[in-house]
Amino acid sequence: MKRIGACALGLATIVFGISAVAAAQRKDDLRSPIYGVKLPKGYRDWKLISVAQENGKNNDIRAILGNEIAVKAFREGKRPFPDGTIIVRLAWRYQSSYRNDAVFLAPQSFVAGPPTNIQVSVKDSKRYAATGGWGYGQFEGELPNRDPAVVQACFACHVKLEKLEHGADFVFTGYSQ
Amino acid sequence: MKRIGACALGLATIVFGISAVAAAQRKDDLRSPIYGVKLPKGYRDWKLISVAQENGKNNDIRAILGNEIAVKAFREGKRPFPDGTIIVRLAWRYQSSYRNDAVFLAPQSFVAGPPTNIQVSVKDSKRYAATGGWGYGQFEGELPNRDPAVVQACFACHVKLEKLEHGADFVFTGYSQ
Repeated sequence: MKRIGACALGLATIVFGISAVAAAQRKDDLRSPIYGVKLPKGYRDWKLISVAQENGKNNDIRAILGNEIAVKAFREGKRPFPDGTIIVRLAWRYQSSYRNDAVFLAPQSFVAGPPTNIQVSVKDSKRYAATGGWGYGQFEGELPNRDPAVVQACFACHVKLEKLEHGADFVFTGYSQ
Repeated sequence: MKRIGACALGLATIVFGISAVAAAQRKDDLRSPIYGVKLPKGYRDWKLISVAQENGKNNDIRAILGNEIAVKAFREGKRPFPDGTIIVRLAWRYQSSYRNDAVFLAPQSFVAGPPTNIQVSVKDSKRYAATGGWGYGQFEGELPNRDPAVVQACFACHVKLEKLEHGADFVFTGYSQ
């Protein structure tokens, strides 16, 4: 009995240990690589900043939402954005609406298809000092893309904008009234 | 003195009368013809339903926002929409972003230009029984378009959708996750 008891205890310890590691990993799994950015809670209820459409490899139609700090800064034209700003870019496959075209009698209507990915920019001038104060994450079906190259590509693109338009604070989007 | 007093009183009455008429007209001016739909207060803070893009005469990129009743119905797939549903379609000139294209090194980026108009659909199954339960308004720079033909065109188009897709409750937009 003692032997069985010790064995059960050992097994329980191992099971507990594995569960703890798995839980830690799951928690870690919700953050983007390099920056540790999470998909913010309730982002889908946030206010609209603007919309856009990208052809080429992206082939998407998108909406840019922001938290209260972001919306206030956009509306007041405040740059650089204050710490705590979070901008969420949602994107969906850009596709023809044959149903709408049948109503309008012209091939003119494009709508949002299935979601592609969600990109999140978080302003924290200290934590992300090396990347202009911005941390990035890309999420697919609520989970972060784990490839560090993906989030590295975020800054690689945003820094080009900074060179072209200093004062935009690395942000492509403007507020649409 | 008496004569001047009577004259001043008469003048004051006329001025007051004109002001009252003007105020009533201004109030009336904020409602669409036929349906009497107003641009709802705070609509720009409402939650996003979806986005779309129209070529042809419209040449716009658009966002569809909804009040709480609308968002709940969209998210739950509830049709017909309950009374009190308000859907606001914002649209902006669809235009190339040469700045973004310079960053991406490809002519791929389209953004929201100046606003074109805002269209509002209000569900009130009793008041708007003759038009499928929906009342319409189109607003340009916060003011309603006063041409009855414009709002008549709203229903003329939405009723075609109803024939093509009964059960959509005259609404083109679906919710984008």
